[in-house]
Amino acid sequence: MSAARTDVEAVEAANTALYDAVERGDMDALARMWLEEQEAGESGVSVVHPGWPVLTGRGEVLRSYALIMANTDYIQFFLTDTEISVLGDTALVSCTENILSGGPAEEDGSAGPLVGGLVVATNVFRRTEDGEWKVWSHHGSPVLVERDEDDSDDDEEPGQGDIEL
Amino acid sequence: MSAARTDVEAVEAANTALYDAVERGDMDALARMWLEEQEAGESGVSVVHPGWPVLTGRGEVLRSYALIMANTDYIQFFLTDTEISVLGDTALVSCTENILSGGPAEEDGSAGPLVGGLVVATNVFRRTEDGEWKVWSHHGSPVLVERDEDDSDDDEEPGQGDIEL
Repeated sequence: MSAARTDVEAVEAANTALYDAVERGDMDALARMWLEEQEAGESGVSVVHPGWPVLTGRGEVLRSYALIMANTDYIQFFLTDTEISVLGDTALVSCTENILSGGPAEEDGSAGPLVGGLVVATNVFRRTEDGEWKVWSHHGSPVLVERDEDDSDDDEEPGQGDIEL
Repeated sequence: MSAARTDVEAVEAANTALYDAVERGDMDALARMWLEEQEAGESGVSVVHPGWPVLTGRGEVLRSYALIMANTDYIQFFLTDTEISVLGDTALVSCTENILSGGPAEEDGSAGPLVGGLVVATNVFRRTEDGEWKVWSHHGSPVLVERDEDDSDDDEEPGQGDIEL
């Protein structure tokens, strides 16, 4: 770790490490990356996995990851569109998770089918007293509508932007 | 506004006001509730509407609300499960949006059909220099899996928690 790196670089490294821990199925590493209860405010940490309700508190959050890992033989995240804003000791990260995952192996021992998925995430980090960035909140959700990559507004109505419903 | 109210109460009022502005279709009020670019850090504010990709920056965020308002004749939010954590000048809010909405009126002038929806949201607020709580990020996503309200772990495997996939 270089002391010269910026806050944004440190947050990006913490964000990448979060996904690496899930890829490796490393619950110990994952648990260390989330704020402790006493660091997380009145209601504690929170997580929303794609399509899930909100889970709050370290216990529920970590159990949800244990459940996901138990049901996932293989998962790989390719992060794109990572945007980071740092204000004081809080960092706001948004990114697109391009996911390749596989279920439990088939009965004959072969790997389960691999499936691709597109999830967008908002991750909030806090800098702890020892200078580490830890996760306060993760919210991931499926992308169900397409974004028009053509930024031209020529033929669009005012206010329509570049979203297609 | 009472000077005696706590940070958590002030944040809850800001969170409620955000949804009230969408209900009223009040773009001016909504725009005032979001951080200005110079207050929002390197990448600015961000929003994820249910099923949408991430949008960053005030321009894109406010255009997305204008588009939603233009396509929504009626919308009402019943907020439940609101959880608030305040750390310094940042507040993390999670809540469930129980939504009742209607599309544009039918050609015969009658109201469009009303539909219910369930969305979970993570909203991040920042306290500005003048003491107001303003929105840094909103992430809403559809709930696609059911949560088992029975908290009994008696017949569950370790780590399974109370989530049903």
